[in-house]
Amino acid sequence: MRPSLADNLPVRRLAIVGAGLMGGSLALALRPYLDHLTLIDPHPHARQAAAGLADRVTADLADGVTDAELVILAAPVRAILRLVAELPAARPDGCLLLDLGSTKEIICRSMAAMPSQFQAIGGHPMCGRETAGFAAADPDLYRNQTFVLCRNGRTTPRVEQVSLAILARIGSRPLFLPPDMHDGLVGASSHLPYLASAALMQTAAALRDDQVWRVSASGFRDTSRLSGSDPAMMLDILLTNRTAVLDHLQKYLAELTAVQQLLQTGDEEMLAQWLTTAQRHHQVYKTKYE
Amino acid sequence: MRPSLADNLPVRRLAIVGAGLMGGSLALALRPYLDHLTLIDPHPHARQAAAGLADRVTADLADGVTDAELVILAAPVRAILRLVAELPAARPDGCLLLDLGSTKEIICRSMAAMPSQFQAIGGHPMCGRETAGFAAADPDLYRNQTFVLCRNGRTTPRVEQVSLAILARIGSRPLFLPPDMHDGLVGASSHLPYLASAALMQTAAALRDDQVWRVSASGFRDTSRLSGSDPAMMLDILLTNRTAVLDHLQKYLAELTAVQQLLQTGDEEMLAQWLTTAQRHHQVYKTKYE
Repeated sequence: MRPSLADNLPVRRLAIVGAGLMGGSLALALRPYLDHLTLIDPHPHARQAAAGLADRVTADLADGVTDAELVILAAPVRAILRLVAELPAARPDGCLLLDLGSTKEIICRSMAAMPSQFQAIGGHPMCGRETAGFAAADPDLYRNQTFVLCRNGRTTPRVEQVSLAILARIGSRPLFLPPDMHDGLVGASSHLPYLASAALMQTAAALRDDQVWRVSASGFRDTSRLSGSDPAMMLDILLTNRTAVLDHLQKYLAELTAVQQLLQTGDEEMLAQWLTTAQRHHQVYKTKYE
Repeated sequence: MRPSLADNLPVRRLAIVGAGLMGGSLALALRPYLDHLTLIDPHPHARQAAAGLADRVTADLADGVTDAELVILAAPVRAILRLVAELPAARPDGCLLLDLGSTKEIICRSMAAMPSQFQAIGGHPMCGRETAGFAAADPDLYRNQTFVLCRNGRTTPRVEQVSLAILARIGSRPLFLPPDMHDGLVGASSHLPYLASAALMQTAAALRDDQVWRVSASGFRDTSRLSGSDPAMMLDILLTNRTAVLDHLQKYLAELTAVQQLLQTGDEEMLAQWLTTAQRHHQVYKTKYE
């Protein structure tokens, strides 16, 4: 059933660059409310997978964005930086622009340097899966999730209003943050947990004993889940948020070294206090998160 | 509906010491197949919560185990050690004995030192939740989960056969392991992940910025979940598996320090290799685990 006109978006022609998990999920969620959807992806298998969903599927940026009102960049961070640099030539008359990149300071800085015919805002939906690709796309991926928006020198009321309408349509909760604050916070809530998870997986695998998987319960499954994330995406994240990640990593190592010493000396009282504090923080977090 | 006789267990009178999440879940799962169930717990609120389920609920060990064919100890590790020491006086004629303690070497050593009228086997179900207490108990908690069994100097074919019948009834998969091997493996698959998770929570909380919870997605939720574990239970685990935990923790710190250096020097190629290796291990683990 075609939704009513009242449900439509303030833009009717959309181009999404990147038909992976994030771009594909967005395409699935927005498809019913659009007149024309173009998906742009350099990978033939991604284009093939997405072919049934879009009006046009292409590998060519200039061809794909030619008459889109809004372009959404759904790619790893450094691919987004290349696309922002290419867009002025690909689309000389400019357009509305939103991205879904995982770090925001470097992207917003490059958006701010675009020609003034572009109206651009940085975006970062706080959702994802460790399985990548269009095959894992889900129109409900964004529902009830926080979607950070970062204003920059090319942000206008128009691109802000259109982005908010998109977020309302996919069910996300907008949260405006300055780009540097975003990067600092997700360094602690997302990038450090990824490194912690990947290091856990490396440590368990280094035992070279398959029995370790057999005695693994849901605790290991959950703490190690992020280690399955796409390395290309994570590489871009770590390299474009290096300062914040290194800062959090140093504090994390300090926490682990502290608990290591408590365990070495067998300081039961202080160890109990450390464990109890962690549990209390977890309770506070659960209250705020849920 | 009362199950048929054919479904019954080789023991009909069971006493469970500890009416928390693990003991309570076991009681719920086994209740229909027993003639008599006693729950023993020192905490009045636990006894109150469990009162409707058992034929008898008591705080007194000797009173509770007096005519049980099988006694199951479902308590933190060091409480189990105290119970194993008290049982010979509480039950002079001996009985079958199984425990659910999270570390096995120290418990199996104390079981082996019991009088010969006790037939005892160490047990560790690879399941749990970060929510403790009888209120969280679930008869399906053990279903499709690995349940490690550790033979020791007091293990007989009879206690092994009874324990396997209990595992079959609750739907667990038995895995026989020597106690020291068990402790080494769960140090990597469970105790280290707990410390990693608790340290993540401490690091995020140390920011003292509630916004960090708002930008937290499922990645943070899953990697930090274990930090909510019961501190009393975890303290006993860490102190009774100190050598293995410290060994794994040192290797974990080495992994994190290695990735810290790659990030500091910006060695993109080696960093990409580290991330890719972690993802490949995760894929292997998923194949073995699922």
